[in-house]
Amino acid sequence: MAIIGAPMDMVVNRPGARFWPRAIRQAGYVGSPNDYLYHIGLDVYPTQVLKVVDFGDAMCTPFSLEQSHQAINDKVSEALDAGAVPVVLGGDHSVTLPSATAVVQRYGVGKVGIVHFDAHADTWDSLYGSRISHGSPMRRLIESGVVPGKNFVQVGLRGYAPDRRLFDWMRDQGMRWHTALDIESKGFDVVLEEALVQAQEGPEYLYLSVDIDVLDPAFAPGTGTPKPGGLTTAELLRAVRRVALTGKLVAMDVVEVSPPYDGPAGLAAEAAHRVVLEAISGMASLRSDPQS
Amino acid sequence: MAIIGAPMDMVVNRPGARFWPRAIRQAGYVGSPNDYLYHIGLDVYPTQVLKVVDFGDAMCTPFSLEQSHQAINDKVSEALDAGAVPVVLGGDHSVTLPSATAVVQRYGVGKVGIVHFDAHADTWDSLYGSRISHGSPMRRLIESGVVPGKNFVQVGLRGYAPDRRLFDWMRDQGMRWHTALDIESKGFDVVLEEALVQAQEGPEYLYLSVDIDVLDPAFAPGTGTPKPGGLTTAELLRAVRRVALTGKLVAMDVVEVSPPYDGPAGLAAEAAHRVVLEAISGMASLRSDPQS
Amino acid sequence: MAIIGAPMDMVVNRPGARFWPRAIRQAGYVGSPNDYLYHIGLDVYPTQVLKVVDFGDAMCTPFSLEQSHQAINDKVSEALDAGAVPVVLGGDHSVTLPSATAVVQRYGVGKVGIVHFDAHADTWDSLYGSRISHGSPMRRLIESGVVPGKNFVQVGLRGYAPDRRLFDWMRDQGMRWHTALDIESKGFDVVLEEALVQAQEGPEYLYLSVDIDVLDPAFAPGTGTPKPGGLTTAELLRAVRRVALTGKLVAMDVVEVSPPYDGPAGLAAEAAHRVVLEAISGMASLRSDPQS
Amino acid sequence: MAIIGAPMDMVVNRPGARFWPRAIRQAGYVGSPNDYLYHIGLDVYPTQVLKVVDFGDAMCTPFSLEQSHQAINDKVSEALDAGAVPVVLGGDHSVTLPSATAVVQRYGVGKVGIVHFDAHADTWDSLYGSRISHGSPMRRLIESGVVPGKNFVQVGLRGYAPDRRLFDWMRDQGMRWHTALDIESKGFDVVLEEALVQAQEGPEYLYLSVDIDVLDPAFAPGTGTPKPGGLTTAELLRAVRRVALTGKLVAMDVVEVSPPYDGPAGLAAEAAHRVVLEAISGMASLRSDPQS
Amino acid sequence: MAIIGAPMDMVVNRPGARFWPRAIRQAGYVGSPNDYLYHIGLDVYPTQVLKVVDFGDAMCTPFSLEQSHQAINDKVSEALDAGAVPVVLGGDHSVTLPSATAVVQRYGVGKVGIVHFDAHADTWDSLYGSRISHGSPMRRLIESGVVPGKNFVQVGLRGYAPDRRLFDWMRDQGMRWHTALDIESKGFDVVLEEALVQAQEGPEYLYLSVDIDVLDPAFAPGTGTPKPGGLTTAELLRAVRRVALTGKLVAMDVVEVSPPYDGPAGLAAEAAHRVVLEAISGMASLRSDPQS
Amino acid sequence: MAIIGAPMDMVVNRPGARFWPRAIRQAGYVGSPNDYLYHIGLDVYPTQVLKVVDFGDAMCTPFSLEQSHQAINDKVSEALDAGAVPVVLGGDHSVTLPSATAVVQRYGVGKVGIVHFDAHADTWDSLYGSRISHGSPMRRLIESGVVPGKNFVQVGLRGYAPDRRLFDWMRDQGMRWHTALDIESKGFDVVLEEALVQAQEGPEYLYLSVDIDVLDPAFAPGTGTPKPGGLTTAELLRAVRRVALTGKLVAMDVVEVSPPYDGPAGLAAEAAHRVVLEAISGMASLRSDPQS
Repeated sequence: MAIIGAPMDMVVNRPGARFWPRAIRQAGYVGSPNDYLYHIGLDVYPTQVLKVVDFGDAMCTPFSLEQSHQAINDKVSEALDAGAVPVVLGGDHSVTLPSATAVVQRYGVGKVGIVHFDAHADTWDSLYGSRISHGSPMRRLIESGVVPGKNFVQVGLRGYAPDRRLFDWMRDQGMRWHTALDIESKGFDVVLEEALVQAQEGPEYLYLSVDIDVLDPAFAPGTGTPKPGGLTTAELLRAVRRVALTGKLVAMDVVEVSPPYDGPAGLAAEAAHRVVLEAISGMASLRSDPQS
Repeated sequence: MAIIGAPMDMVVNRPGARFWPRAIRQAGYVGSPNDYLYHIGLDVYPTQVLKVVDFGDAMCTPFSLEQSHQAINDKVSEALDAGAVPVVLGGDHSVTLPSATAVVQRYGVGKVGIVHFDAHADTWDSLYGSRISHGSPMRRLIESGVVPGKNFVQVGLRGYAPDRRLFDWMRDQGMRWHTALDIESKGFDVVLEEALVQAQEGPEYLYLSVDIDVLDPAFAPGTGTPKPGGLTTAELLRAVRRVALTGKLVAMDVVEVSPPYDGPAGLAAEAAHRVVLEAISGMASLRSDPQS
Repeated sequence: MAIIGAPMDMVVNRPGARFWPRAIRQAGYVGSPNDYLYHIGLDVYPTQVLKVVDFGDAMCTPFSLEQSHQAINDKVSEALDAGAVPVVLGGDHSVTLPSATAVVQRYGVGKVGIVHFDAHADTWDSLYGSRISHGSPMRRLIESGVVPGKNFVQVGLRGYAPDRRLFDWMRDQGMRWHTALDIESKGFDVVLEEALVQAQEGPEYLYLSVDIDVLDPAFAPGTGTPKPGGLTTAELLRAVRRVALTGKLVAMDVVEVSPPYDGPAGLAAEAAHRVVLEAISGMASLRSDPQS
Repeated sequence: MAIIGAPMDMVVNRPGARFWPRAIRQAGYVGSPNDYLYHIGLDVYPTQVLKVVDFGDAMCTPFSLEQSHQAINDKVSEALDAGAVPVVLGGDHSVTLPSATAVVQRYGVGKVGIVHFDAHADTWDSLYGSRISHGSPMRRLIESGVVPGKNFVQVGLRGYAPDRRLFDWMRDQGMRWHTALDIESKGFDVVLEEALVQAQEGPEYLYLSVDIDVLDPAFAPGTGTPKPGGLTTAELLRAVRRVALTGKLVAMDVVEVSPPYDGPAGLAAEAAHRVVLEAISGMASLRSDPQS
Repeated sequence: MAIIGAPMDMVVNRPGARFWPRAIRQAGYVGSPNDYLYHIGLDVYPTQVLKVVDFGDAMCTPFSLEQSHQAINDKVSEALDAGAVPVVLGGDHSVTLPSATAVVQRYGVGKVGIVHFDAHADTWDSLYGSRISHGSPMRRLIESGVVPGKNFVQVGLRGYAPDRRLFDWMRDQGMRWHTALDIESKGFDVVLEEALVQAQEGPEYLYLSVDIDVLDPAFAPGTGTPKPGGLTTAELLRAVRRVALTGKLVAMDVVEVSPPYDGPAGLAAEAAHRVVLEAISGMASLRSDPQS
Repeated sequence: MAIIGAPMDMVVNRPGARFWPRAIRQAGYVGSPNDYLYHIGLDVYPTQVLKVVDFGDAMCTPFSLEQSHQAINDKVSEALDAGAVPVVLGGDHSVTLPSATAVVQRYGVGKVGIVHFDAHADTWDSLYGSRISHGSPMRRLIESGVVPGKNFVQVGLRGYAPDRRLFDWMRDQGMRWHTALDIESKGFDVVLEEALVQAQEGPEYLYLSVDIDVLDPAFAPGTGTPKPGGLTTAELLRAVRRVALTGKLVAMDVVEVSPPYDGPAGLAAEAAHRVVLEAISGMASLRSDPQS
């Protein structure tokens, strides 16, 4: 697996996400992934099973979305060429656009579905007149034909957006989603299983995109567009593990961690760090004989 | 609906609540209530249905409780005269006394019940020798005859107060309450429905008073008298929505947010901001045809 | 009961625990334990029933583990000699070693079991080459024969340690434990009851050791080795109360609160403060006639 | 000398001063005043020469200025009766009114001058309609005849208040003052010597009142009404030492430290702690033979 | 005078400057400029002499430098058309480009000089490949012919940039500058007077541009590119006042305040707020008869 | 030059210094030392003249002073063997003991003098019974004969320690020092020149030890034992540059930066980062032809 930093945040509300690739690499008192890590629940030493490499940062710039996106696409492609599973650490959510595009370029259009944990649908046509932003990556992926709408499953939408017309557009694309209110009424585990079934209807491979604001702000204060009423960290870690255990995960990103708002304990950075470890552990457990 | 600031905090433990009317007006990255807000669960554009006006702050002073309370009473009365539903942003919890009094002056004694979410009962006879404080508003409302004790329902009481004698007094007044331990044993939704039934036994109208410390301090660190073991934000938002959906809500307050203790993410201010939006949305959904 | 400070933190990741005895004595807006405290759920005035005394701090030094541990052992022994239930406020988790040793010295080897709430098992043989540290107290207690492995019950283990070999060692000692994943699958209350049954199989007395990092970092950001995915404060308070209600509690410690990482609201210090109060209340309710 | 806490802040802009008596007692890594303190410049062990006693806090309440002021007056009088030099730790600046009044009641009207370091003159007739506040103590002392205007010397006034009319009133009372602009043009040491000469023209005794906001906010961020452009801590400590070395100091206060705004390092609390030590040291050096 | 917000920060190191127009409007416990403000040193009531109007924010967007700059140019032009002296609150330093351009469009090429307080020269040809950024506004103004190099005077340059080649380019343009080392060796007041003389050689009007990082980070922690070793706030306020007293000031900006890094006391925001007041006061004092 | 991290802080008041080697490597928005750095005052590109290498961290452990000190000694010796000038980033001040010892082992006893900027003399015989701590390194160096007392020059001592007896011991050793009061009375530049002359009386080589608490806490809040009344950053940078310009500097350390107390802007870390750059620049300017 290849850890890739994408330090850009041109297009967010509370900036600071650009600092996160650095923050996540420091989170976790156990240090960077090492051989002693053992996943209690999965009974696996993930980094003994999988080789995890720090691929460095994509060369993003605060002056040009296009240039930054190109750099991310290049870096992800390079990791894929090396046979790795890219793990992109945003940055803002616009990084999913070049990252997922690179993945589809390799695995084939229609072959890759996106499982997307987020408080927001990120399917706006434009924000402040710009069609490329942290509010639009999923729309651009659909409209450009990279990922068909029916291959999207979103979990955690809540609050006061998207609005009725945007939901209509999403429905027209065949997208599926599960709101926080669905989770409240059905329970998180039921929703999760539904989402996993939907995600695997069609695509051979899965791309996992985790916007840390899917967590309640109490669990992830350091993010650009906090929305009260989200998931607990325990729920998100369980979900990520389950996605990895499908055996179809070929790439992932974790985005929108903003250190300046994260407080002295770095809660969001710690949570994001564990999201990555949990995905690695799930993938590792498929390849290992846990009793050996 | 008329948003009214009541920036006073003479009578709290950790001060700072005076800054909250300003903080809540800035919370929510979507900005102040605008036409694009859409409530996902209720399928309504609340601010297209209801007119929401910022009525400004009551002219509170740090030197005189009486003067501050009079200013709040005047401002709330003015909003009621304009036909609005006043939404008072405290300030400390003593603001409920002048605010609810103004509401009862308009709707009639005995006509208005109070649904009160709080970690504390706020029914002390006096604190440090003062009968007017953030610990006494509910007692003063009852003793002055403005709201009969039987028209009070409290949700979220926990910790080490009130004590046995105070509960005895409350019981004698016919007050009803639901503690955090009741919520643990019965589940929040059961308790909520019981409370809603009780609240509507008698009064024609409801006044909603939300002390942000009903939330666990993890969800609302910025408050004057934090008590571990409280509600999640998701639970509180659901409760507020349910109160609004009774169709009987004529006024509300949200109190005890203290920005200096709220951390860089402003968790309590964000939560309080959503409490107001959730109430507005609930009321709006009653007046709209969601499928139009 | 005797409150004892143990301000040492030589052996942690993020230091600062040394400041906690001071922080906890200031937490709780109701001030230090006083006669007006009333436990709503247990219907008891705990400090009217039990005499709670501040025994001061053990004279710890940042230069010598041995010297600090001896000071803690002495102070706890002194409290026991006075007939008190010692409540040790760490400091790092290594304080459990001298504290529990003093308790066993008084009550007899094999007579005392340990109920241990923690994200970590603290059974490492050594850390950085040192056999005495915050990662090893439980191992040293077992190996020295002070507390047999079968008299340990641990609740809350999660994340990426201990590893398989360490679990094997623990199993060989007869230790019992309940992971966060057990809690997710069975529910907290089921796990808690199982743990309570196990804890009372054998020992006549119980020592309660609470590492504040058993809480999710959202509820206790101020700790040295935060692990996402932990308990809520409400769950921990319920558990502590249940342990106290067994009637077998003879000593306790609360450790690993680190004020510099706790944010302006002091969430972990507040939670730890309530842990102590909840234990006192549980013990008090056994000795009182709640209806008198 | 008797250290007295006056934890009140009803009457400030950014509240929090009420927490300062607690904060100052914890500031200074050397702990509370102890026998090993040695003043490098004055060659004296101040606490070997002078007995320094913590007299505890005056019983202030957030509900009543009158009650709080009476408590401060009582506590200061008690210290004076015991033959001590009272050192009052505010609290807001209104505490100077009851404190200096108590001192004058003992030493005689006209016998006591006030040396006042502050960014503000605190001579407003009223604030928000109240004649007793943190903006008025010096005026009340003058108007009540307790301290004649000519016995006041103020150092550090700056910014946008008082205004021309208030300066006219001050001039009419015979008050003397030195603004930050005077300090810029003449140099601090020249201004300090002028102020010391003026302060000793008439009164036999001196009362020193230090509002921590006389410091630039960079040196004392934790205060209620910060004004850019103030003194450095080194300058203030030198000034306090010089006042103490007059041999006429009979009481002092240090006010307006607000911990919630003071940042993790507690800069203002540390500075205020040293202000007290510096005064003690100056007084001690007069009574000791430094070469013995 | 017209206060204009320019909330953009695409092009900085530590983002957050976009929040500053909001922060400065809240800084200063005396509230927004009001009639009671009186400048002690200049003996003037500035807002009685000059009309100060809040012109609102230019409609900046995080997605487009060009669009944001156009909005700022329009807003400044609008203020100039109304006969006002525009006071632009950045935002990052790139705002000087559209703002000064608008001013020159009105007053004539060659007629306007720029007095520039900054730790940086902001004359880079490009940063990360972009010719429009917070590092280049002064170069673009010179190259576009809007302001000739000889009409620039810079004060406060320090640290490790610009480099030798850039200084050569600046010298070729006829620019003048004064480094922190010049200030150390000559004294601030000597340097200030030299700069004022140079600034008035040629241009009829002056534009004042204040990058808050000209202050030492102790006085202005909340900025994007802090450089240790800068001015004190008192020095900067004196300098601004002196510039205003030339009688030639027709516009100004204050830029690079970043609230997320500013700490709980908001030191940089407070300092910037006073910079604006000091300029207003200086201008007002020229138009008033201070003894009337 | 070889940058070496020494992340230990067993022996301090407010811990956290262990995190500093990481913090300093991130400070400075210009990134790690790079070829574009140009020192304005010295007209030199320091990293083009000198090769600066990150040698990594010494393997310190929180459990053993001896083990940590041995690791530092080894790492510094390794750098010296490679012909480099070691730059040790503490860690607490005890790191000077192994670091300076390694330097003397290479250059010869009596050949190396120590220029020491600090608020404290660090010559205590023992602290809490330990002879090795952050309060004793200079004493151990003298008593072990590694550096004769007459080869020490200390600048910046202030406050309430050392005491008279300790000064007597220091005087007996032939040590020289300059207190903050000396600086106030003579001016910093006079004191600096005196210290430089003294430092070069005898030794052929100089070791520079900078405790960041020599700065006033306003300039360096993030430190373990803050003492109000210290140097400005500009003064310290000037002093470090002057030491480097003697041409005798063969090693240096910068110690006692504690990130948890440093606030969101990281003032102390930024200052310490520049201390290192300033020393490098001074050394580089001696080896370059600035006009070439």
